[in-house]
Amino acid sequence: MDTFSESGYFWKGGQTLKVPMELFKLNRQRLCEALRSHRTLPSDSFVLLQGGTSEMRYCSDHEPLFRQESYFHWTFGVIEPDFIGAINIQNNQSILFIPRLPPSYVAWMGKIKEPDEYKKIYHVDHVYYVDELEKTFDELVGTSKLILVLHGLNTDSGSESKPANFNGIEKFHLDKTTLHPIITECRVLKTDLELDVLRYTNKISSEAHKFVMLNIKDGMYEYETEALFQYYCHRYGAMRHMSYTCICATGENPAVLHYGHAGAPNDRQLTSKDMCLFDMGGEYYCYASDITCSFPVSGRFTNEQRIIYEAVLDANRQVMKNVRPDVSWVDMHLLAERTQLEHLKQAGLIQGDIDEMMDVRLGALFMPHGLGHMIGIDTHDVGGYLDPHTRSTLPGLKSLRTNRLLKERMCITVEPGIYFNQALLNDGYNNNELNKFLNKNIIDKYLHIGGVRIEDNIVITKDGCELLTNVPRSCDEIEEWMNNNNKEIVDKIDYQLFDQLNKKYQYKNQYLTIKKDA
Amino acid sequence: MDTFSESGYFWKGGQTLKVPMELFKLNRQRLCEALRSHRTLPSDSFVLLQGGTSEMRYCSDHEPLFRQESYFHWTFGVIEPDFIGAINIQNNQSILFIPRLPPSYVAWMGKIKEPDEYKKIYHVDHVYYVDELEKTFDELVGTSKLILVLHGLNTDSGSESKPANFNGIEKFHLDKTTLHPIITECRVLKTDLELDVLRYTNKISSEAHKFVMLNIKDGMYEYETEALFQYYCHRYGAMRHMSYTCICATGENPAVLHYGHAGAPNDRQLTSKDMCLFDMGGEYYCYASDITCSFPVSGRFTNEQRIIYEAVLDANRQVMKNVRPDVSWVDMHLLAERTQLEHLKQAGLIQGDIDEMMDVRLGALFMPHGLGHMIGIDTHDVGGYLDPHTRSTLPGLKSLRTNRLLKERMCITVEPGIYFNQALLNDGYNNNELNKFLNKNIIDKYLHIGGVRIEDNIVITKDGCELLTNVPRSCDEIEEWMNNNNKEIVDKIDYQLFDQLNKKYQYKNQYLTIKKDA
Repeated sequence: MDTFSESGYFWKGGQTLKVPMELFKLNRQRLCEALRSHRTLPSDSFVLLQGGTSEMRYCSDHEPLFRQESYFHWTFGVIEPDFIGAINIQNNQSILFIPRLPPSYVAWMGKIKEPDEYKKIYHVDHVYYVDELEKTFDELVGTSKLILVLHGLNTDSGSESKPANFNGIEKFHLDKTTLHPIITECRVLKTDLELDVLRYTNKISSEAHKFVMLNIKDGMYEYETEALFQYYCHRYGAMRHMSYTCICATGENPAVLHYGHAGAPNDRQLTSKDMCLFDMGGEYYCYASDITCSFPVSGRFTNEQRIIYEAVLDANRQVMKNVRPDVSWVDMHLLAERTQLEHLKQAGLIQGDIDEMMDVRLGALFMPHGLGHMIGIDTHDVGGYLDPHTRSTLPGLKSLRTNRLLKERMCITVEPGIYFNQALLNDGYNNNELNKFLNKNIIDKYLHIGGVRIEDNIVITKDGCELLTNVPRSCDEIEEWMNNNNKEIVDKIDYQLFDQLNKKYQYKNQYLTIKKDA
Repeated sequence: MDTFSESGYFWKGGQTLKVPMELFKLNRQRLCEALRSHRTLPSDSFVLLQGGTSEMRYCSDHEPLFRQESYFHWTFGVIEPDFIGAINIQNNQSILFIPRLPPSYVAWMGKIKEPDEYKKIYHVDHVYYVDELEKTFDELVGTSKLILVLHGLNTDSGSESKPANFNGIEKFHLDKTTLHPIITECRVLKTDLELDVLRYTNKISSEAHKFVMLNIKDGMYEYETEALFQYYCHRYGAMRHMSYTCICATGENPAVLHYGHAGAPNDRQLTSKDMCLFDMGGEYYCYASDITCSFPVSGRFTNEQRIIYEAVLDANRQVMKNVRPDVSWVDMHLLAERTQLEHLKQAGLIQGDIDEMMDVRLGALFMPHGLGHMIGIDTHDVGGYLDPHTRSTLPGLKSLRTNRLLKERMCITVEPGIYFNQALLNDGYNNNELNKFLNKNIIDKYLHIGGVRIEDNIVITKDGCELLTNVPRSCDEIEEWMNNNNKEIVDKIDYQLFDQLNKKYQYKNQYLTIKKDA
């Protein structure tokens, strides 16, 4: 048994998810249908996509672990580097071009698979070598000479995708504009088969968060909690890659939204007085999860911690109650912001009229990021802006990674937060439009919390949403989970909203037997 | 407390190693001395090095966790991306150029450090912004206009390093030939401060291997052992990066030297009959370790397993007994090969005259790789070939990553192995020069072992070597470790060779309390 030995599946054995190759066949089919309905294309026109390539670290001999380029993964599900793929748009026929490996490969890297083996593994119609690309295309694209390649803007990164290339490509007509928006929109709307993978990644990552909560203690370093999370995901979920760099923020660090990077590497020692903001997710077969849990190291919320936590949780839940097709994500952002401002006002941190606060974008002082982002093969998945020029320039709203109307089968994160970032607050105190709303004396009492974020992953359904994330969320649930680690108690925890919003979860709670470290 | 808060050290807290910034100051000083003794250089000539840059995965918004470029790390010890560094060759004065970060950095990435803070952290003489490079160099390199940049071949990867660059560099005289061989040779010979880091990485990775041995069981998947290893290194050693992709080979997979890559991702389910070949090492502050342990899943060697294992161990120990300054690494490779052939002959797998076998390079059928490689900031560390044209073209010897005479303070891996790779053996059976030595019937009985490699890291001393790796090595030690996990037994294990060859190990065995998973 290895990853592909059971014909037709990607599977890591045991309790891990079997992903059928149908997933990618269906993706290719959807892509071709969308292209054909977009405009009439010659019967011998092709899509050509370049897979990710093997790379070395600078001039050294170090080869980082390869992870497939996301568009290519969506289309073919190939785990190896240096492939190229093509699809006949008219009849959906698929071709993979594989690298021709040197004989020495067998001793250093393993058995050299023949084209026919790859044909069976990846369920494509033809497999040739990359060095046969020109010859093959000469035969296949004889008349129209039309090849659609990928070229377009990723609105999250600001980078453009690099079109596929091969020796001899200059004799074909390259269309660089048609493919990108259409394949991107296909990626935005997830199929049932894709949703199953996202359910699985959320399941494993949820359990891994619970594992961390159980094992956290005073005196640990933040990176130890990262190690615990990755260990659980990798060992029990076969997640060799994280979806993104783990954010294990405690003390004042939660105020830094992307804490955990190389320059701020989860290196603080935590104390029993801290709140944790742990934003971590594993990926399986390149599908992401992105979950944030906020909780006290001690396992018991203080009054201040509870006030902030419940404000954010209310915002999170308000959004989930209101999402459905055709709802504007910008409106959801504003709803979350308003909900949080109301709680902050009630607790005395701010004062004045909520509508006025909304007008001057006061909420962005406490939540500078957007409410959430598409999620799929990339954590910040593609397709957030149909037109990047429609991006707002206002505080908070300009950070939104999508401003679209929701559609059924979109997957998106819901991640409101309240942060106490001294630099941002100082901007507020120095701003005459904002400072009249701020009660510095009260806010100062909350600074030590750093910040709270509550991030779930949902998929938009016909009449609302399905919740994919399943971790203890209310203060009571968290306290119960962190303080009562025995089977009886665990089974009694009522993840009410999850049960209500998740109608088809097919995985048994086989991981609920996780224990505290010895 | 964070990584650099205790002035003058890189430190991850607790039992982890404190690395003084002196390490890099001394490296810079050694470099300048070597350059000055190489030839007379103008008093205002500078070395200019480009640090690693932040990168994204293809067009996506995914930023892989940054790891510093190795030459830059050796020179400055900087953990952040997008720095540039310079050194005045005459007086060793050092300058760091840091990126000017946008105000939004404070909310997303954390506090923006001022030049003065970096000056204190990295113990350099001056810190400016990258956008001040041209102006600064105009002032500093006024007369000679001479800048030494890095350009040269990495003999392991075949890649060339990319010289530093900045807007306006064209008005200076760039010397692209002097720096590379000299800084490379400086990297080859480790200082005491560097050796301490390598001792630490070996210590932690050794303990992590022992942790895996204790927790392995029938039915696990190979990737679970990778997860266990990484967890131990990360949690207890603060090793956030592995030195290289983990090779967790069982069954027939050990015959594939670089098994574990994305196309062969440690995905086999192991059985009690398997040998494991686990080649894994963590890195700390960019210094590598590279250790291979081979052992039976069951914790008890079969007769065949023991025969092969002891052949390889004998080769490993023969090398350690014979290394010292001025010994040729090629001779050590041949010694290991001869030792292994003698064992294989005694066990009946091969027959005939050993000298004749050596002449026809029979040993490369069973050990196609070189005996070992330099290790340091890169796993395959630089400087293996003073002249790449002197690389042998003979089987086995052509795979050597160095053909040099050993020198005091070189760090190198000692990793003989015997593999049963069906494709290579078939080459042997079909080769009239080789097949007369091969007893196929007997060899077939050993095929299931896949392969055994025993890899330690050593540093060459005045009169021999110091052994950095400390894992159970004899069959008896391994069986004892895997079957008797209690403190009394553990303390009795006599890592004889380690104690004999390691004279200054300063870390207590605080990790020996590791336990089996519940």
